[in-house]
Amino acid sequence: MDFITVERKVLRKNDELAAENRARFNGAGVYVLNLLSSPGAGKTTLLEQTIRLLDGRPRAAVVEGDVQTDHDARRIAATGAPVVQIVTNGACHLEAKLVQDALGSLDMDGVELLLIENVGNLVCPASFDLGEHKKVVIASTTEGADKPVKYPKVFRVSDVCLLNKIDLLPHVDFDVDEFLNYARTTNPDLRFFQTSARTGEGLEPWVDWLRDNAPGRS
Amino acid sequence: MDFITVERKVLRKNDELAAENRARFNGAGVYVLNLLSSPGAGKTTLLEQTIRLLDGRPRAAVVEGDVQTDHDARRIAATGAPVVQIVTNGACHLEAKLVQDALGSLDMDGVELLLIENVGNLVCPASFDLGEHKKVVIASTTEGADKPVKYPKVFRVSDVCLLNKIDLLPHVDFDVDEFLNYARTTNPDLRFFQTSARTGEGLEPWVDWLRDNAPGRS
Repeated sequence: MDFITVERKVLRKNDELAAENRARFNGAGVYVLNLLSSPGAGKTTLLEQTIRLLDGRPRAAVVEGDVQTDHDARRIAATGAPVVQIVTNGACHLEAKLVQDALGSLDMDGVELLLIENVGNLVCPASFDLGEHKKVVIASTTEGADKPVKYPKVFRVSDVCLLNKIDLLPHVDFDVDEFLNYARTTNPDLRFFQTSARTGEGLEPWVDWLRDNAPGRS
Repeated sequence: MDFITVERKVLRKNDELAAENRARFNGAGVYVLNLLSSPGAGKTTLLEQTIRLLDGRPRAAVVEGDVQTDHDARRIAATGAPVVQIVTNGACHLEAKLVQDALGSLDMDGVELLLIENVGNLVCPASFDLGEHKKVVIASTTEGADKPVKYPKVFRVSDVCLLNKIDLLPHVDFDVDEFLNYARTTNPDLRFFQTSARTGEGLEPWVDWLRDNAPGRS
Protein backbone atom coordinates (compact mmCIF):
# COMPACT_ATOMS: atom_id res chain seq x y z
CA MET A 1 0.00 0.00 0.00
CA ASP A 2 2.82 2.35 0.97
CA PHE A 3 4.64 1.29 -2.13
CA ILE A 4 1.70 2.12 -4.38
CA THR A 5 1.25 5.54 -2.76
CA VAL A 6 4.92 6.39 -3.21
CA GLU A 7 4.80 5.15 -6.81
CA ARG A 8 1.83 7.42 -7.53
CA LYS A 9 3.70 10.37 -6.04
CA VAL A 10 6.69 9.62 -8.24
CA LEU A 11 4.50 9.42 -11.34
CA ARG A 12 2.66 12.67 -10.48
CA LYS A 13 5.93 14.52 -9.94
CA ASN A 14 7.20 13.07 -13.23
CA ASP A 15 4.10 14.29 -15.06
CA GLU A 16 4.63 17.83 -13.76
CA LEU A 17 8.24 17.88 -14.96
CA ALA A 18 7.21 16.34 -18.30
CA ALA A 19 4.70 19.17 -18.75
CA GLU A 20 7.51 21.68 -18.11
CA ASN A 21 9.68 19.94 -20.69
CA ARG A 22 6.85 19.94 -23.23
CA ALA A 23 6.17 23.67 -22.69
CA ARG A 24 9.85 24.36 -23.23
CA PHE A 25 9.95 22.25 -26.42
CA ASN A 26 6.83 23.98 -27.76
CA GLY A 27 8.25 27.38 -26.96
CA ALA A 28 11.40 26.57 -28.91
CA GLY A 29 9.53 24.92 -31.81
CA VAL A 30 11.19 21.54 -31.24
CA TYR A 31 9.31 18.36 -32.12
CA VAL A 32 10.19 15.54 -29.73
CA LEU A 33 9.94 11.76 -30.08
CA ASN A 34 10.51 9.16 -27.35
CA LEU A 35 11.85 5.91 -28.86
CA LEU A 36 11.07 2.70 -26.97
CA SER A 37 12.07 -0.90 -27.63
CA SER A 38 13.60 -4.09 -26.26
CA PRO A 39 17.39 -4.09 -25.91
CA GLY A 40 18.89 -4.82 -29.31
CA ALA A 41 15.93 -3.90 -31.53
CA GLY A 42 18.18 -1.51 -33.44
CA LYS A 43 17.29 1.91 -32.02
CA THR A 44 20.79 3.37 -32.22
CA THR A 45 21.47 2.12 -35.76
CA LEU A 46 18.07 3.50 -36.76
CA LEU A 47 18.98 6.90 -35.30
CA GLU A 48 22.37 6.94 -37.05
CA GLN A 49 20.77 6.20 -40.40
CA THR A 50 17.84 8.55 -39.84
CA ILE A 51 20.09 11.49 -39.00
CA ARG A 52 22.21 10.85 -42.11
CA LEU A 53 19.12 10.68 -44.31
CA LEU A 54 17.57 13.80 -42.77
CA ASP A 55 20.80 15.61 -43.69
CA GLY A 56 19.92 18.62 -41.53
CA ARG A 57 16.33 18.97 -42.77
CA PRO A 58 15.09 19.17 -40.06
CA ARG A 59 18.10 19.70 -37.82
CA ALA A 60 18.07 16.88 -35.25
CA ALA A 61 19.59 16.33 -31.82
CA VAL A 62 19.60 13.19 -29.69
CA VAL A 63 19.26 12.30 -26.02
CA GLU A 64 20.68 8.81 -25.36
CA GLY A 65 19.45 6.81 -22.38
CA ASP A 66 21.39 3.78 -21.17
CA VAL A 67 21.80 1.85 -17.94
CA GLN A 68 25.58 2.06 -18.39
CA THR A 69 28.22 3.24 -20.94
CA ASP A 70 28.31 6.10 -23.43
CA HIS A 71 28.69 3.74 -26.43
CA ASP A 72 25.50 4.96 -28.06
CA ALA A 73 26.25 8.68 -27.65
CA ARG A 74 29.64 8.12 -29.30
CA ARG A 75 27.97 6.45 -32.27
CA ILE A 76 25.52 9.35 -32.62
CA ALA A 77 28.28 11.96 -32.20
CA ALA A 78 29.99 10.45 -35.26
CA THR A 79 27.00 11.59 -37.37
CA GLY A 80 27.69 15.20 -36.36
CA ALA A 81 24.36 15.64 -34.55
CA PRO A 82 24.35 17.21 -31.07
CA VAL A 83 23.95 14.43 -28.50
CA VAL A 84 23.92 14.00 -24.74
CA GLN A 85 24.19 10.68 -22.89
CA ILE A 86 22.10 9.93 -19.81
CA VAL A 87 23.51 7.01 -17.79
CA THR A 88 20.79 5.80 -15.42
CA ASN A 89 23.21 3.76 -13.26
CA GLY A 90 20.94 0.78 -12.98
CA ALA A 91 17.55 2.42 -13.41
CA CYS A 92 15.31 0.77 -15.99
CA HIS A 93 13.79 3.83 -17.71
CA LEU A 94 14.25 7.55 -18.35
CA GLU A 95 12.30 10.11 -16.33
CA ALA A 96 11.36 13.71 -17.17
CA LYS A 97 13.83 15.07 -14.58
CA LEU A 98 16.76 13.23 -16.20
CA VAL A 99 15.82 14.67 -19.60
CA GLN A 100 15.40 18.15 -18.11
CA ASP A 101 18.87 17.97 -16.55
CA ALA A 102 20.43 16.56 -19.71
CA LEU A 103 19.08 19.42 -21.86
CA GLY A 104 21.48 21.72 -20.01
CA SER A 105 24.36 19.88 -21.70
CA LEU A 106 22.86 19.78 -25.18
CA ASP A 107 23.44 22.37 -27.89
CA MET A 108 19.82 22.99 -28.95
CA ASP A 109 20.65 25.96 -31.17
CA GLY A 110 18.56 25.63 -34.32
CA VAL A 111 17.37 22.14 -33.40
CA GLU A 112 13.88 21.33 -34.76
CA LEU A 113 13.69 17.62 -33.93
CA LEU A 114 14.77 15.95 -30.70
CA LEU A 115 15.01 12.16 -30.67
CA ILE A 116 15.14 10.56 -27.23
CA GLU A 117 16.41 6.98 -27.18
CA ASN A 118 15.04 5.42 -24.01
CA VAL A 119 16.62 2.54 -22.07
CA GLY A 120 16.14 -0.78 -23.88
CA ASN A 121 13.14 -2.12 -22.01
CA LEU A 122 9.67 -2.94 -23.30
CA VAL A 123 7.94 -2.50 -19.92
CA CYS A 124 8.94 0.33 -17.56
CA PRO A 125 9.67 3.26 -19.94
CA ALA A 126 6.08 3.11 -21.20
CA SER A 127 4.84 4.55 -17.87
CA PHE A 128 7.00 7.70 -17.87
CA ASP A 129 6.12 10.79 -19.90
CA LEU A 130 9.29 12.72 -20.76
CA GLY A 131 7.54 15.68 -22.36
CA GLU A 132 7.70 14.20 -25.85
CA HIS A 133 5.04 14.82 -28.50
CA LYS A 134 4.82 11.19 -29.55
CA LYS A 135 6.14 7.81 -28.50
CA VAL A 136 7.56 5.48 -31.15
CA VAL A 137 7.81 1.76 -30.38
CA ILE A 138 10.39 -0.22 -32.33
CA ALA A 139 9.88 -3.97 -32.66
CA SER A 140 12.11 -6.28 -34.66
CA THR A 141 11.60 -9.41 -36.75
CA THR A 142 13.88 -11.44 -34.47
CA GLU A 143 11.45 -11.06 -31.57
CA GLY A 144 8.18 -13.01 -31.39
CA ALA A 145 5.25 -11.75 -33.46
CA ASP A 146 3.07 -11.76 -30.33
CA LYS A 147 5.06 -9.03 -28.53
CA PRO A 148 2.19 -6.47 -28.92
CA VAL A 149 -0.13 -8.63 -26.78
CA LYS A 150 2.56 -9.78 -24.35
CA TYR A 151 3.79 -6.20 -23.73
CA PRO A 152 0.60 -4.27 -24.55
CA LYS A 153 1.18 -1.01 -22.70
CA VAL A 154 4.09 0.21 -24.81
CA PHE A 155 2.09 -0.46 -27.99
CA ARG A 156 -0.97 1.24 -26.49
CA VAL A 157 0.82 4.48 -25.53
CA SER A 158 2.74 4.76 -28.83
CA ASP A 159 1.53 6.55 -31.94
CA VAL A 160 4.03 5.02 -34.33
CA CYS A 161 5.40 1.48 -34.63
CA LEU A 162 8.52 0.61 -36.58
CA LEU A 163 9.03 -3.04 -37.44
CA ASN A 164 12.80 -3.16 -37.86
CA LYS A 165 15.26 -5.78 -39.19
CA ILE A 166 13.05 -6.70 -42.16
CA ASP A 167 16.27 -7.74 -43.96
CA LEU A 168 16.29 -10.81 -41.67
CA LEU A 169 12.77 -11.96 -42.63
CA PRO A 170 14.07 -14.75 -44.93
CA HIS A 171 16.09 -16.19 -42.03
CA VAL A 172 13.62 -16.08 -39.12
CA ASP A 173 10.18 -17.53 -38.36
CA PHE A 174 8.34 -14.22 -38.16
CA ASP A 175 4.85 -13.70 -39.57
CA VAL A 176 4.51 -9.98 -40.41
CA ASP A 177 0.71 -10.16 -40.83
CA GLU A 178 0.36 -11.88 -37.45
CA PHE A 179 2.47 -9.13 -35.87
CA LEU A 180 0.46 -6.34 -37.53
CA ASN A 181 -2.81 -7.97 -36.46
CA TYR A 182 -1.66 -8.29 -32.86
CA ALA A 183 -0.43 -4.68 -32.87
CA ARG A 184 -3.69 -3.35 -34.39
CA THR A 185 -5.72 -5.33 -31.86
CA THR A 186 -3.73 -3.64 -29.09
CA ASN A 187 -3.85 -0.17 -30.65
CA PRO A 188 -5.98 0.40 -33.78
CA ASP A 189 -4.49 3.89 -34.29
CA LEU A 190 -0.85 2.82 -34.66
CA ARG A 191 0.95 4.02 -37.76
CA PHE A 192 3.43 1.45 -39.13
CA PHE A 193 6.76 1.60 -40.90
CA GLN A 194 8.69 -1.50 -41.92
CA THR A 195 12.41 -0.83 -41.93
CA SER A 196 15.89 -2.25 -41.98
CA ALA A 197 18.19 0.26 -40.31
CA ARG A 198 21.09 -1.97 -41.42
CA THR A 199 20.36 -2.03 -45.17
CA GLY A 200 18.38 1.22 -45.34
CA GLU A 201 15.30 -0.54 -46.74
CA GLY A 202 12.06 1.24 -45.86
CA LEU A 203 13.69 4.23 -44.21
CA GLU A 204 12.49 6.86 -46.72
CA PRO A 205 8.79 6.78 -45.71
CA TRP A 206 9.85 7.10 -42.06
CA VAL A 207 12.12 10.04 -42.84
CA ASP A 208 9.33 11.65 -44.89
CA TRP A 209 6.99 11.26 -41.94
CA LEU A 210 9.56 12.97 -39.68
CA ARG A 211 9.87 15.84 -42.18
CA ASP A 212 6.06 16.18 -42.33
CA ASN A 213 5.81 16.38 -38.55
CA ALA A 214 8.89 18.19 -37.31
CA PRO A 215 9.39 21.34 -39.35
CA GLY A 216 7.47 24.55 -39.01
CA ARG A 217 5.92 23.43 -35.76
CA SER A 218 5.14 26.18 -33.27
CA MET B 1 14.35 9.24 0.11
CA ASP B 2 10.97 7.70 0.99
CA PHE B 3 11.04 5.88 -2.31
CA ILE B 4 14.45 4.33 -1.60
CA THR B 5 13.37 3.22 1.89
CA VAL B 6 10.24 1.55 0.56
CA GLU B 7 12.24 -0.10 -2.21
CA ARG B 8 14.67 -1.54 0.34
CA LYS B 9 11.75 -2.89 2.38
CA VAL B 10 10.32 -4.54 -0.74
CA LEU B 11 13.68 -6.14 -1.56
CA ARG B 12 14.20 -7.36 2.03
CA LYS B 13 10.74 -8.93 2.15
CA ASN B 14 11.44 -10.51 -1.25
CA ASP B 15 14.72 -11.99 0.03
CA GLU B 16 12.90 -13.58 2.97
CA LEU B 17 10.34 -15.21 0.71
CA ALA B 18 13.07 -16.30 -1.71
CA ALA B 19 14.87 -18.02 1.18
CA GLU B 20 11.62 -19.84 2.01
CA ASN B 21 11.30 -20.94 -1.62
CA ARG B 22 14.92 -22.13 -1.70
CA ALA B 23 14.47 -24.15 1.51
CA ARG B 24 11.40 -25.77 0.01
CA PHE B 25 13.22 -26.58 -3.24
CA ASN B 26 16.17 -28.04 -1.35
CA GLY B 27 13.85 -30.11 0.84
CA ALA B 28 12.20 -31.56 -2.24
CA GLY B 29 15.49 -32.11 -4.11
CA VAL B 30 14.51 -29.75 -6.93
CA TYR B 31 17.21 -27.80 -8.79
CA VAL B 32 15.94 -24.39 -9.87
CA LEU B 33 17.11 -22.00 -12.59
CA ASN B 34 15.90 -18.43 -13.19
CA LEU B 35 16.12 -17.57 -16.91
CA LEU B 36 16.61 -13.89 -17.78
CA SER B 37 16.80 -12.11 -21.12
CA SER B 38 15.52 -9.31 -23.32
CA PRO B 39 12.10 -9.85 -24.89
CA GLY B 40 12.52 -12.05 -27.93
CA ALA B 41 15.91 -13.62 -27.12
CA GLY B 42 14.34 -17.06 -27.52
CA LYS B 43 13.74 -18.20 -23.94
CA THR B 44 10.51 -20.08 -24.65
CA THR B 45 11.83 -21.84 -27.75
CA LEU B 46 14.93 -22.78 -25.77
CA LEU B 47 12.74 -24.25 -23.00
CA GLU B 48 10.62 -26.22 -25.50
CA GLN B 49 13.71 -27.74 -27.10
CA THR B 50 15.50 -28.33 -23.79
CA ILE B 51 12.52 -30.20 -22.32
CA ARG B 52 12.26 -32.39 -25.44
CA LEU B 53 15.99 -33.20 -25.32
CA LEU B 54 15.94 -33.90 -21.58
CA ASP B 55 13.22 -36.45 -22.30
CA GLY B 56 12.32 -36.80 -18.63
CA ARG B 57 15.93 -37.15 -17.39
CA PRO B 58 15.71 -35.14 -15.21
CA ARG B 59 11.97 -34.55 -15.00
CA ALA B 60 11.41 -30.82 -15.56
CA ALA B 61 8.63 -28.35 -14.78
CA VAL B 62 8.30 -24.72 -15.84
CA VAL B 63 7.09 -21.47 -14.31
CA GLU B 64 6.30 -18.94 -17.05
CA GLY B 65 6.40 -15.22 -16.27
CA ASP B 66 4.80 -12.71 -18.63
CA VAL B 67 3.37 -9.23 -18.42
CA GLN B 68 0.28 -10.49 -20.26
CA THR B 69 -1.07 -13.62 -22.02
CA ASP B 70 -0.59 -17.34 -21.43
CA HIS B 71 0.95 -17.91 -24.87
CA ASP B 72 4.21 -19.23 -23.44
CA ALA B 73 2.59 -21.63 -20.96
CA ARG B 74 0.53 -23.10 -23.81
CA ARG B 75 3.69 -23.70 -25.82
CA ILE B 76 5.38 -25.43 -22.85
CA ALA B 77 2.25 -27.48 -22.08
CA ALA B 78 2.50 -28.95 -25.58
CA THR B 79 5.80 -30.58 -24.55
CA GLY B 80 3.98 -32.47 -21.78
CA ALA B 81 5.92 -30.80 -18.96
CA PRO B 82 3.99 -29.42 -15.96
CA VAL B 83 3.74 -25.64 -16.34
CA VAL B 84 2.13 -22.71 -14.59
CA GLN B 85 1.74 -19.21 -16.03
CA ILE B 86 2.27 -16.10 -13.91
CA VAL B 87 0.74 -12.99 -15.51
CA THR B 88 2.25 -9.94 -13.81
CA ASN B 89 -0.41 -7.55 -15.18
CA GLY B 90 2.04 -4.84 -16.08
CA ALA B 91 4.83 -5.55 -13.61
CA CYS B 92 8.29 -5.77 -15.13
CA HIS B 93 9.75 -8.74 -13.20
CA LEU B 94 8.87 -11.82 -11.16
CA GLU B 95 9.09 -11.72 -7.37
CA ALA B 96 9.53 -14.57 -4.87
CA LYS B 97 5.93 -14.20 -3.64
CA LEU B 98 4.53 -14.70 -7.16
CA VAL B 99 6.59 -17.86 -7.57
CA GLN B 100 5.54 -19.10 -4.12
CA ASP B 101 1.87 -18.62 -4.99
CA ALA B 102 2.29 -20.20 -8.42
CA LEU B 103 3.84 -23.37 -6.98
CA GLY B 104 0.43 -24.14 -5.45
CA SER B 105 -0.90 -24.66 -8.99
CA LEU B 106 2.03 -26.73 -10.26
CA ASP B 107 2.24 -30.51 -10.18
CA MET B 108 5.72 -30.92 -8.66
CA ASP B 109 5.40 -34.68 -8.17
CA GLY B 110 8.72 -36.25 -9.14
CA VAL B 111 10.05 -32.97 -10.54
CA GLU B 112 13.85 -32.63 -10.25
CA LEU B 113 14.42 -29.48 -12.31
CA LEU B 114 12.35 -26.30 -12.22
CA LEU B 115 12.93 -23.75 -14.99
CA ILE B 116 11.56 -20.27 -14.29
CA GLU B 117 11.20 -18.08 -17.36
CA ASN B 118 11.25 -14.50 -16.09
CA VAL B 119 9.59 -11.52 -17.78
CA GLY B 120 11.54 -10.42 -20.88
CA ASN B 121 13.55 -7.56 -19.41
CA LEU B 122 17.31 -7.18 -19.09
CA VAL B 123 17.14 -4.75 -16.15
CA CYS B 124 14.59 -5.23 -13.34
CA PRO B 125 14.45 -9.06 -12.92
CA ALA B 126 18.17 -9.08 -12.06
CA SER B 127 17.39 -7.46 -8.67
CA PHE B 128 14.87 -10.06 -7.45
CA ASP B 129 15.91 -13.41 -5.98
CA LEU B 130 13.17 -15.99 -6.56
CA GLY B 131 14.79 -18.75 -4.53
CA GLU B 132 16.59 -20.24 -7.54
CA HIS B 133 19.98 -21.96 -7.32
CA LYS B 134 21.40 -20.18 -10.34
CA LYS B 135 20.49 -17.42 -12.75
CA VAL B 136 20.97 -17.98 -16.48
CA VAL B 137 21.18 -14.96 -18.79
CA ILE B 138 20.28 -15.51 -22.42
CA ALA B 139 21.64 -13.09 -24.99
CA SER B 140 21.14 -13.38 -28.73
CA THR B 141 23.20 -12.62 -31.81
CA THR B 142 20.61 -10.12 -33.05
CA GLU B 143 21.30 -7.83 -30.10
CA GLY B 144 24.43 -5.70 -29.85
CA ALA B 145 27.67 -7.38 -28.74
CA ASP B 146 28.08 -4.72 -26.05
CA LYS B 147 24.97 -5.73 -24.06
CA PRO B 148 27.09 -7.14 -21.16
CA VAL B 149 28.56 -3.69 -20.45
CA LYS B 150 25.35 -1.78 -21.18
CA TYR B 151 23.25 -4.02 -18.89
CA PRO B 152 25.98 -5.25 -16.51
CA LYS B 153 23.94 -6.30 -13.49
CA VAL B 154 22.16 -9.23 -15.12
CA PHE B 155 25.49 -10.56 -16.40
CA ARG B 156 27.08 -10.04 -12.97
CA VAL B 157 24.41 -11.95 -11.01
CA SER B 158 24.21 -14.85 -13.48
CA ASP B 159 26.31 -18.01 -13.38
CA VAL B 160 25.58 -19.15 -16.90
CA CYS B 161 25.28 -17.25 -20.17
CA LEU B 162 23.67 -18.66 -23.28
CA LEU B 163 24.40 -16.90 -26.54
CA ASN B 164 21.36 -17.91 -28.59
CA LYS B 165 20.42 -17.56 -32.29
CA ILE B 166 23.89 -18.56 -33.52
CA ASP B 167 22.16 -19.78 -36.73
CA LEU B 168 21.73 -16.09 -37.63
CA LEU B 169 25.45 -15.23 -37.35
CA PRO B 170 25.98 -15.22 -41.14
CA HIS B 171 23.19 -12.64 -41.52
CA VAL B 172 23.96 -10.15 -38.72
CA ASP B 173 26.87 -7.90 -37.74
CA PHE B 174 27.67 -9.64 -34.47
CA ASP B 175 31.22 -10.25 -33.25
CA VAL B 176 31.11 -13.31 -30.94
CA ASP B 177 34.61 -12.67 -29.54
CA GLU B 178 33.74 -9.07 -28.74
CA PHE B 179 30.61 -10.27 -26.92
CA LEU B 180 32.52 -12.92 -24.94
CA ASN B 181 35.18 -10.38 -23.99
CA TYR B 182 32.61 -7.88 -22.80
CA ALA B 183 30.79 -10.60 -20.84
CA ARG B 184 34.02 -11.89 -19.23
CA THR B 185 35.02 -8.34 -18.30
CA THR B 186 31.67 -7.96 -16.54
CA ASN B 187 31.77 -11.40 -14.89
CA PRO B 188 34.93 -13.54 -15.22
CA ASP B 189 33.15 -16.58 -13.72
CA LEU B 190 30.40 -16.87 -16.36
CA ARG B 191 30.03 -20.26 -18.04
CA PHE B 192 29.05 -19.97 -21.72
CA PHE B 193 26.99 -22.01 -24.12
CA GLN B 194 26.43 -21.00 -27.74
CA THR B 195 23.09 -22.25 -28.99
CA SER B 196 20.42 -22.06 -31.62
CA ALA B 197 17.15 -23.08 -30.02
CA ARG B 198 15.62 -22.94 -33.52
CA THR B 199 17.99 -25.39 -35.27
CA GLY B 200 19.09 -27.30 -32.18
CA GLU B 201 22.76 -26.44 -32.74
CA GLY B 202 24.79 -26.34 -29.52
CA LEU B 203 21.98 -27.58 -27.27
CA GLU B 204 23.61 -30.89 -26.25
CA PRO B 205 26.36 -29.34 -24.05
CA TRP B 206 23.70 -27.22 -22.33
CA VAL B 207 21.47 -30.24 -21.73
CA ASP B 208 24.50 -32.21 -20.43
CA TRP B 209 25.23 -29.37 -18.03
CA LEU B 210 21.62 -29.48 -16.78
CA ARG B 211 21.90 -33.27 -16.27
CA ASP B 212 25.17 -32.81 -14.36
CA ASN B 213 23.60 -30.23 -12.05
CA ALA B 214 19.99 -31.25 -11.54
CA PRO B 215 19.84 -34.97 -10.69
CA GLY B 216 20.63 -36.53 -7.35
CA ARG B 217 20.70 -33.16 -5.67
CA SER B 218 19.63 -33.12 -2.02
